[in-house]
Amino acid sequence: MQNKNVRISSEEVSKATHDALERRGVKVLDIAEIVYEMQVPYNKGLTIEHCTQSVERVLRKREVQHAVLVGIELDELAEKKMLSEPLQSIIENDEGLFGVDETIALGSVFTYGSIAVTTFGHLDKKKIGIIEKLDTKTGHGVHTFLDDLIGSIAACAASRIAHRMRDLEEEGETFADVPPVVLGPQAKSKEDL
Amino acid sequence: MQNKNVRISSEEVSKATHDALERRGVKVLDIAEIVYEMQVPYNKGLTIEHCTQSVERVLRKREVQHAVLVGIELDELAEKKMLSEPLQSIIENDEGLFGVDETIALGSVFTYGSIAVTTFGHLDKKKIGIIEKLDTKTGHGVHTFLDDLIGSIAACAASRIAHRMRDLEEEGETFADVPPVVLGPQAKSKEDL
Amino acid sequence: MQNKNVRISSEEVSKATHDALERRGVKVLDIAEIVYEMQVPYNKGLTIEHCTQSVERVLRKREVQHAVLVGIELDELAEKKMLSEPLQSIIENDEGLFGVDETIALGSVFTYGSIAVTTFGHLDKKKIGIIEKLDTKTGHGVHTFLDDLIGSIAACAASRIAHRMRDLEEEGETFADVPPVVLGPQAKSKEDL
Amino acid sequence: MQNKNVRISSEEVSKATHDALERRGVKVLDIAEIVYEMQVPYNKGLTIEHCTQSVERVLRKREVQHAVLVGIELDELAEKKMLSEPLQSIIENDEGLFGVDETIALGSVFTYGSIAVTTFGHLDKKKIGIIEKLDTKTGHGVHTFLDDLIGSIAACAASRIAHRMRDLEEEGETFADVPPVVLGPQAKSKEDL
Repeated sequence: MQNKNVRISSEEVSKATHDALERRGVKVLDIAEIVYEMQVPYNKGLTIEHCTQSVERVLRKREVQHAVLVGIELDELAEKKMLSEPLQSIIENDEGLFGVDETIALGSVFTYGSIAVTTFGHLDKKKIGIIEKLDTKTGHGVHTFLDDLIGSIAACAASRIAHRMRDLEEEGETFADVPPVVLGPQAKSKEDL
Repeated sequence: MQNKNVRISSEEVSKATHDALERRGVKVLDIAEIVYEMQVPYNKGLTIEHCTQSVERVLRKREVQHAVLVGIELDELAEKKMLSEPLQSIIENDEGLFGVDETIALGSVFTYGSIAVTTFGHLDKKKIGIIEKLDTKTGHGVHTFLDDLIGSIAACAASRIAHRMRDLEEEGETFADVPPVVLGPQAKSKEDL
Repeated sequence: MQNKNVRISSEEVSKATHDALERRGVKVLDIAEIVYEMQVPYNKGLTIEHCTQSVERVLRKREVQHAVLVGIELDELAEKKMLSEPLQSIIENDEGLFGVDETIALGSVFTYGSIAVTTFGHLDKKKIGIIEKLDTKTGHGVHTFLDDLIGSIAACAASRIAHRMRDLEEEGETFADVPPVVLGPQAKSKEDL
Repeated sequence: MQNKNVRISSEEVSKATHDALERRGVKVLDIAEIVYEMQVPYNKGLTIEHCTQSVERVLRKREVQHAVLVGIELDELAEKKMLSEPLQSIIENDEGLFGVDETIALGSVFTYGSIAVTTFGHLDKKKIGIIEKLDTKTGHGVHTFLDDLIGSIAACAASRIAHRMRDLEEEGETFADVPPVVLGPQAKSKEDL
């Protein structure tokens, strides 16, 4: 599907992604805290700012943005009872064997390699931070897709940090030597393709 | 997510899946024809009935049913202009780099192994049969998710046939020895788990 | 790749898979214990025999058998220092960012759906049972691929049980009503394709 | 697996990857030609140099390098009859339902998103360029893993170009405006993490 002539700017999609997360009560910092908790044991000198920047960078990736937009849309439609049955009930109740939420989240997780996949699986079982809060807020909205999306973004950001750590080691450095901004945005630079 | 207490019966989900495909103008036979075209060169004695039965069997799998229900729901919501922007435009126009449609379809393709994955990729590029018809019917509805779902179901059914062929060879048989019904439904039998 | 004329029987591949696991000190029961620990909280009446049968069934799947054979071969070649550098060092030391072990394991995990993927990720982080024993036996052989393979088989068997549980619930039953043998072998039956 | 203390430099792994491809008779240009053939219909101004640079960039990614090293090692061991049976026969004959070759290749394909996955599937069926040459050179060596690896690298490089094209469109440019070097190496820059 790469030859259609549509004009939705990357900036617009990017802004919509941030807006959607905010509307659902999720701050970049909430996700960064999960990343920090996962990665601090392995990465000397890692700060919450490094994690925030890494999350921001993940949020600039098209695959991630599209997944967030689709997932949150389905959560919100389910809240408004606007889906047809039996999908409405399946999503509203986060039915045990429904896996499209994990599938959509995994799509972007894959783009960060196998460390991201195992980290995502771990977060799915052992809900921490904001993921746990959403999970227990039952009755206050549908978050069937949202909790997997957060796990996905956190797993991607954690994987980026693990890879970056390896590079630092080779250079004889640690995260204490890296200004956080270096981990941040700019995914769409010409060099990055 | 496996401990919630919901009660949507498998039969209900199964029926909804068939209804959704029919509503969107896709017959089991249409998908079977794609499978036949892909597999007949390798499988002596293969008939369209074998392919129909294999498609029916794929359609009994939960992963496949959930993917079909979510994908068709999003297509239909986009047709009714009921999605929020910019997602509405992205899906309505099948935006070039939008990949959630492929991601959802891949979720069930994976459950049929690597032959299914490569067959799916092939069908995505070289649209055949009903997939091509949907793709060229522009202006007459949104099929952004549907064409990937069909490719996915066809790829899964083709993979099942390739695996079955191998078993037949070991027994010194071909598909000419197999009554088509043997390839059909019953995925939820106790032995199959 | 489906049209070559080779004659290695399924039985031979199946036997080689069991032999390889045994040679590396892994019993079906060891894997079943991991499955039991993961699934008993959710499945009333589940016994270790159900888990053993489910593991046996997973081990009959071609994707799983091929993954086991390749992974164990690479571990054994690394033990004998028969790989070329730098691959020898990477595998021998289970280098931090090497992910081909997880990738090979994930190939079969995918065939059991998204529950299997998240369970695999969880096992990768929180090593339990035989996986932990292998992981700490450093100095006594290379198990870079083996521990991921075990996690993969356990995750697949656990996913089968979760899906089966759902079917039982619909019929108003629990695992207490199911003779373990019902979860066992026979994956290559004509109906199963 | 991210806390081991090994010291194989990225440069060493990178060099070994290039050496392995060269030893097996595959030039970067061969892969670039596949990329060019796949992408030129969609990308105005695209040159073979852009494709070469994109392939070089893909070859700097750890996931890709590890996959290449493992796959080629297995091909070469099979050529020397150094694998144990039945794996030796399965790989030597590129047995129809053996899928570990595709699985290893897919591991890196996933890191380039869903366009890469479908492109890979397409290349797997419709062998072009060097892939076809390898495939027909039967009797002259084992290339069971190599042809999937080449398809994987080509698919990743093609996906990078498709994504880059989209960015150019937004800026009102085409590939004719982009010096090829801009698509090249440097994947391990601090910004790229």
